Amino acid sequence: MSNQYLDPNLKVFSLNSNRELASEIASVIGVELGKCSVQRFSDGEITINIEESIRGCDVYVIQSTSSPVNEHLMELLIMIDALKRASAKTINIVMPYYGYARQDRKARSREPITAKLAANLLETAGATRVITLDLHAPQIQGFFDIPIDHLMGVPILADYFKSKAMDGDLVIVSPDHGGVTRARKMAERLKAPIAIIDKRRPKPNVAEVMNIVGNIEGKIAILIDDIIDTAGTITLAANALVEHGASEVYACCTHPVLSGPAIDRIQNSSIKELVVTNSIALPEEKKIEKIVHLSVAPLIGEAIIRVHEEQSVSTLFD
Amino acid sequence: MSNQYLDPNLKVFSLNSNRELASEIASVIGVELGKCSVQRFSDGEITINIEESIRGCDVYVIQSTSSPVNEHLMELLIMIDALKRASAKTINIVMPYYGYARQDRKARSREPITAKLAANLLETAGATRVITLDLHAPQIQGFFDIPIDHLMGVPILADYFKSKAMDGDLVIVSPDHGGVTRARKMAERLKAPIAIIDKRRPKPNVAEVMNIVGNIEGKIAILIDDIIDTAGTITLAANALVEHGASEVYACCTHPVLSGPAIDRIQNSSIKELVVTNSIALPEEKKIEKIVHLSVAPLIGEAIIRVHEEQSVSTLFD
Amino acid sequence: MSNQYLDPNLKVFSLNSNRELASEIASVIGVELGKCSVQRFSDGEITINIEESIRGCDVYVIQSTSSPVNEHLMELLIMIDALKRASAKTINIVMPYYGYARQDRKARSREPITAKLAANLLETAGATRVITLDLHAPQIQGFFDIPIDHLMGVPILADYFKSKAMDGDLVIVSPDHGGVTRARKMAERLKAPIAIIDKRRPKPNVAEVMNIVGNIEGKIAILIDDIIDTAGTITLAANALVEHGASEVYACCTHPVLSGPAIDRIQNSSIKELVVTNSIALPEEKKIEKIVHLSVAPLIGEAIIRVHEEQSVSTLFD
Amino acid sequence: MSNQYLDPNLKVFSLNSNRELASEIASVIGVELGKCSVQRFSDGEITINIEESIRGCDVYVIQSTSSPVNEHLMELLIMIDALKRASAKTINIVMPYYGYARQDRKARSREPITAKLAANLLETAGATRVITLDLHAPQIQGFFDIPIDHLMGVPILADYFKSKAMDGDLVIVSPDHGGVTRARKMAERLKAPIAIIDKRRPKPNVAEVMNIVGNIEGKIAILIDDIIDTAGTITLAANALVEHGASEVYACCTHPVLSGPAIDRIQNSSIKELVVTNSIALPEEKKIEKIVHLSVAPLIGEAIIRVHEEQSVSTLFD
Amino acid sequence: MSNQYLDPNLKVFSLNSNRELASEIASVIGVELGKCSVQRFSDGEITINIEESIRGCDVYVIQSTSSPVNEHLMELLIMIDALKRASAKTINIVMPYYGYARQDRKARSREPITAKLAANLLETAGATRVITLDLHAPQIQGFFDIPIDHLMGVPILADYFKSKAMDGDLVIVSPDHGGVTRARKMAERLKAPIAIIDKRRPKPNVAEVMNIVGNIEGKIAILIDDIIDTAGTITLAANALVEHGASEVYACCTHPVLSGPAIDRIQNSSIKELVVTNSIALPEEKKIEKIVHLSVAPLIGEAIIRVHEEQSVSTLFD
Amino acid sequence: MSNQYLDPNLKVFSLNSNRELASEIASVIGVELGKCSVQRFSDGEITINIEESIRGCDVYVIQSTSSPVNEHLMELLIMIDALKRASAKTINIVMPYYGYARQDRKARSREPITAKLAANLLETAGATRVITLDLHAPQIQGFFDIPIDHLMGVPILADYFKSKAMDGDLVIVSPDHGGVTRARKMAERLKAPIAIIDKRRPKPNVAEVMNIVGNIEGKIAILIDDIIDTAGTITLAANALVEHGASEVYACCTHPVLSGPAIDRIQNSSIKELVVTNSIALPEEKKIEKIVHLSVAPLIGEAIIRVHEEQSVSTLFD
Repeated sequence: MSNQYLDPNLKVFSLNSNRELASEIASVIGVELGKCSVQRFSDGEITINIEESIRGCDVYVIQSTSSPVNEHLMELLIMIDALKRASAKTINIVMPYYGYARQDRKARSREPITAKLAANLLETAGATRVITLDLHAPQIQGFFDIPIDHLMGVPILADYFKSKAMDGDLVIVSPDHGGVTRARKMAERLKAPIAIIDKRRPKPNVAEVMNIVGNIEGKIAILIDDIIDTAGTITLAANALVEHGASEVYACCTHPVLSGPAIDRIQNSSIKELVVTNSIALPEEKKIEKIVHLSVAPLIGEAIIRVHEEQSVSTLFD
Repeated sequence: MSNQYLDPNLKVFSLNSNRELASEIASVIGVELGKCSVQRFSDGEITINIEESIRGCDVYVIQSTSSPVNEHLMELLIMIDALKRASAKTINIVMPYYGYARQDRKARSREPITAKLAANLLETAGATRVITLDLHAPQIQGFFDIPIDHLMGVPILADYFKSKAMDGDLVIVSPDHGGVTRARKMAERLKAPIAIIDKRRPKPNVAEVMNIVGNIEGKIAILIDDIIDTAGTITLAANALVEHGASEVYACCTHPVLSGPAIDRIQNSSIKELVVTNSIALPEEKKIEKIVHLSVAPLIGEAIIRVHEEQSVSTLFD
Repeated sequence: MSNQYLDPNLKVFSLNSNRELASEIASVIGVELGKCSVQRFSDGEITINIEESIRGCDVYVIQSTSSPVNEHLMELLIMIDALKRASAKTINIVMPYYGYARQDRKARSREPITAKLAANLLETAGATRVITLDLHAPQIQGFFDIPIDHLMGVPILADYFKSKAMDGDLVIVSPDHGGVTRARKMAERLKAPIAIIDKRRPKPNVAEVMNIVGNIEGKIAILIDDIIDTAGTITLAANALVEHGASEVYACCTHPVLSGPAIDRIQNSSIKELVVTNSIALPEEKKIEKIVHLSVAPLIGEAIIRVHEEQSVSTLFD
Repeated sequence: MSNQYLDPNLKVFSLNSNRELASEIASVIGVELGKCSVQRFSDGEITINIEESIRGCDVYVIQSTSSPVNEHLMELLIMIDALKRASAKTINIVMPYYGYARQDRKARSREPITAKLAANLLETAGATRVITLDLHAPQIQGFFDIPIDHLMGVPILADYFKSKAMDGDLVIVSPDHGGVTRARKMAERLKAPIAIIDKRRPKPNVAEVMNIVGNIEGKIAILIDDIIDTAGTITLAANALVEHGASEVYACCTHPVLSGPAIDRIQNSSIKELVVTNSIALPEEKKIEKIVHLSVAPLIGEAIIRVHEEQSVSTLFD
Repeated sequence: MSNQYLDPNLKVFSLNSNRELASEIASVIGVELGKCSVQRFSDGEITINIEESIRGCDVYVIQSTSSPVNEHLMELLIMIDALKRASAKTINIVMPYYGYARQDRKARSREPITAKLAANLLETAGATRVITLDLHAPQIQGFFDIPIDHLMGVPILADYFKSKAMDGDLVIVSPDHGGVTRARKMAERLKAPIAIIDKRRPKPNVAEVMNIVGNIEGKIAILIDDIIDTAGTITLAANALVEHGASEVYACCTHPVLSGPAIDRIQNSSIKELVVTNSIALPEEKKIEKIVHLSVAPLIGEAIIRVHEEQSVSTLFD
Repeated sequence: MSNQYLDPNLKVFSLNSNRELASEIASVIGVELGKCSVQRFSDGEITINIEESIRGCDVYVIQSTSSPVNEHLMELLIMIDALKRASAKTINIVMPYYGYARQDRKARSREPITAKLAANLLETAGATRVITLDLHAPQIQGFFDIPIDHLMGVPILADYFKSKAMDGDLVIVSPDHGGVTRARKMAERLKAPIAIIDKRRPKPNVAEVMNIVGNIEGKIAILIDDIIDTAGTITLAANALVEHGASEVYACCTHPVLSGPAIDRIQNSSIKELVVTNSIALPEEKKIEKIVHLSVAPLIGEAIIRVHEEQSVSTLFD
């Protein structure tokens, strides 16, 4: 490591969800990852062993609550408890991906609001700050009463497309009604118009149709979402775009959940390239050629340094 | 009052923001409004005088935190404190309009999240339940840890348009990128397509243009928003729709804030009719002919009865 | 500014209630007031814009919750929320005047205790310390669980009278039964006896009379109260003192609320001079000639420096 | 017991501070005291044994935190913990005398506010309501966030003097500056004027003198205080009243702490009769002839019944 | 169901850890299990769908936090959140097995106390009562501030051995130093002496030996533990007992975790019969012939009825 | 004091339970004890006077909650309140002996868990850390949500016996079933076997017998417990050991409560020497010749220095 960070009170620990990203972040900052083992007893209970003193330190714990979400969330809660009892000065939770973010409201009766529950659990355990990236809904910031630094991955995705010489008119497409604001922001950075996939059922008992609101004909379409999970919506959208005359279809998202049939669907879809960040670690078998990986380590590393040195984080957003 | 509600433990109180709606709700339920004066001392401090015992009662306090929002919010907090200290069994806050709802996230550095602050203040004061209507973002439900019954005004607006014999094809229009989901819901009820006003600046230092995504030509456009405040967005949208060929433009919203230049703008706009609910009381001078008022009292009154009798509220939504 | 305070982590912000006092305090300390705008949207909602980073800083927010009290209290709560979310290290609330202080107990059934509610709201929002002046009841200190530095304005008032060459025997008069201890303290500083205005109704259905307990004949009477609001009590007291033979009547208080008919009453009363502090900002039209203004800025500024430098504040009281 | 209270869910328990009063209260209500032993292990630790099920019951625990205050307070806290864990529905603390009430503010630097601490401890342990009598400062009500029913003993004392045929003009005297409001209230009930003992030091290094503000000559003086502890103030006051010409001196208080030299001082003073309530149990050796005991059991018993039956308690005060 | 429980406000729900036991408990009480699905989205997030109104109901949720412990604990927390937001009156958590109970103290530096964390998480989510069985340490009761009903499984195990005609002298054996009190309790019920396996290392670098403290020669040994996890300790103990002359070895425990090599070890050990309860569901492949299953459903069902009817639960223990 | 500690922000205060130990600890650290008087008013209320500024300091308060436990616990709570309100930076409670530790679970119905209550009270008052020694149950660590440093006294006791040349084979004896783990730890340090006193009643209505599990004949027995209170168990155990053939009997414990008949029983027992620490101050009359006192001041002093300097405390345990 060439750049070594000088203040020994800044400690970075990684749990099990995304050790590669954690290493990269540590390297950006100029520290070694803290020594700590997180393992399972034979019956599945988590055992955490922090192998260096963290008394009076500002500790940053890097953990996406990606799949298996319950394991990763419990690892995080238990780690926070251990740090609190071991007299850490501050406990800063770095969650590049915030699991359960889509359960952020009661859509039907008697539903939980699991995204709020997770926030309450983290605060109860003893977290004193959260650093996260592209929350599914920005209102989740308000689920916390501790400070939260909300970083943005869209500029990283936009820069990639800007740097790519694409021959033709672009159109930024939201795959559903809730994502239009996000598409608009991407569109501003790429100076392109927007369109929306308007999936709807024309009459009862008639199949849903993929209507497109906006003009995409002959254009290079870039679909954008925050999370791609089973990839059903995005791949149907891509195919519909092609059917309606788009010349090429790209897709991008910050958080590549890519569960279940996602990889197959993407492989078999009209999507030419899917651009994602490494907020969630992908196993080797999911790293197919169509998928381009961009790193958020420089962004997060810089944010940690600024937080630790009590500088404004807002300048990161320009 | 013909239908008198039998359980004397259900008490309904009105504060100062919307006494007319409160009376209507009380009448729907079949109770007299509780005796209580809410006044100002000479220096502006609020003095509350609850003039009947509420020991052991389930109290419902009706107060929109509409303008003047700080006065109305403080009235509500002080009333909750008084009820708590006077041994109410439950304190149920009925807020047809939830003020500060638009400050629901940090959009820039060092912003407050005032919608969350308000939730924290209400819980601290002692509220045990919230009943509200069409929150600006449904995630605000998660700002509370007490139960919240979130009622929907869109069906009331939709029913109005359904009952109105309108000659021509409809299109439901969202006035901005964030409201597309709401427009889609209205569109489903009216079996119509959607369009979006896509306000954007083509180049730096060039005026914003009102682009329209979706087909509106020759159609009757219904603009829908949750809140209409200064009416700038909605009236520009209406004018743009006419310019782009809409045959007629209606507008609707649940919460008619209508502050500052709103009434003038609406009066002078292409909007033929603006349909609103009485979640916010309008002073006489704002009750212009173009504005149609629908009452949410039957919806809220029924919800209170169901909450009090521990029946499911979800059936209200079908 | 000649004396510049060196530690950049001490930040002083002013909200809207008393910007002149805030400037004076900042000048005493040797800092510029922090950049921050506190405005109203068209519908009356408060919008706060903190225009410099305060990460890791010790922030002092100066705001009297004077009239309009609800606006000023909400400004303060929202500012605290913004500071908390922006990672201030400590949030120190400087309230020269604590609004709602007179609602500090249940005098009748079903009353709120709004002074306690306000304390709870401030703690919930995230305040970590309170600096205040001459609380209506010293027990309000116990409404808080965070540290509170309670400064005293009586010495400033006493020093004024000491420095004024008054020819004749003094008597310090409490205008009601609850203020005798305060009068006693002033009397000690001025080495004078005390008297009490004992307003009472001799028989039912007979007008109240202003009885005077203690000897005031031929003396220069100084009436003292903590708060003068509508000035009814104090001006009736002054007139009664003159009727009973006082040679001259002065009045003083820390907090000049002076609402409603106050200025007229004072103007038309037997009070020769009313001495007040600038804990509450008076509009120009209330700055009549009879009223003498003393500044609490040196006292508060010194207290902030001592708090920030972790020196004892108690020495300020001698 | 002739009048038996019917609802078995109302349970009254007594701890060790005032079992006689507790029995009287139970008898007023018409219940047997709950079975419960409160003892000490050999090393002084308290052991509580609740000998009947209280699951789902409304429990009223009668305990003055009189001397030994720390033992009595800890008994109460431990009892609350036991009741909470044993699934009581509500835990209502009946404290006829609230110990540490005089430590209700910081009078000097680095003082505790023990009256607030006690309130916090009671709420933390699990109390859900407090019923108490003549708090030293009414602001202590605001130290609690749970409902508190604050009963008044002054009417009981006043009724005694009214029923006593006293031949001569009365004057009600406050023994210090802080008690004038209390004296004024008593004076209203007895239709008498007031006076104040104004103890002060005329010059440095000169003995304090007992100045009297108000006219007491030839009158029957009734001194009133809320608490009489070592009886220094009240007996010096009584003697001063006689010296200044009072014809007779009576004294009264709600809470007879009567610690240290109190009994001797009273015995040897000019006080003809000291009237007190049984809010604090007096040992036999302190029951001297001069002291008249009035019972608060009817007042408290009636309050418990009204609280339990959810009737207004305010009517008790007329 | 022959015995139908009459009060419809008692609702019993089962999550996924032990549906068989839940059905049995429901049957003992005389209710149908509440309708509720608990499933996983494709990415592993839990989705809960409560399919009947529970407004105002007393809900009992049956869930052992057995393996996979993190999945089962998160199911429980999310269910509690859903019930709280759906206005359940009380939320009673029935945890026959309390996972993470062995992480109940810091044995080394920087360890978490996960059993306390779990308690905090359950309270934060909104649980109002816990019913559990044979906690690893009874002090875990104190980790909660809500009522906890702690049932005992030892009598069920003891009754089994009593009912079994065993020919010979018994000795009850604790497999380690921490379980002697438990062995003593069992010994009292079976009127037998005790012995202890005293595993220790005679010298550094010498293998541990299984020393036996107490006399077991020629006796029928019954090993007892609360939890049998990998079965290493218990099977080594059994073998040592046989080597030291025990005539036969039985083993028993309340909670059959039986992870990893447990079944093999038991199969191959000197244990003649292992007696366990159904607090943890065993998959079919673990139900080997040597293992005898006793049901705790009658005990738990009776406890739920008593809690619901506000009767004492203590009589269950005799 | 030769070694003077340099950081003036470390302040050590002693309350009344064990001033001698506190002085020793202060001396180990190299500081003067903070100036502070803790006294009683005539009626028994505690009054605390902290006579030096502690603003911004890390304060360590030394107080065993030994007998009179309620007085000592209340002293501690009131001191914490005073320190919090006086703006201490951290409030570290050093409790060499934690009173009420044996009330750590509900052994019977309707018992309190006073050890947890005490933890809640300390946290409510404002403690930010606890340093303690040999808790009766290590699970009490989990009663706190603030960091707790749990020191061990067993090594000090073991070292004493190691340094004593004892001629003969040792056996370490647990006086009851719950203390076997503690005996095992001592045995490891002294490389000796263990035995257990197994008090039991052979048949109903027959006297208890002191059975001994393990071989003690001809050996020097060392009885070990954490707390010796009335000394009944330990002296009966000692006598039984002699009767069963032990050559000599020593006893030791960390916490010498020694209440009631303890000293007589020890004096008259077969115990040759009782070794204790000074975690609890013994009055002169209890300092009999048989009792050897070891000081924990070096251990605690070193722990305070390490906590203050944010070094690992774990190295103290090797």
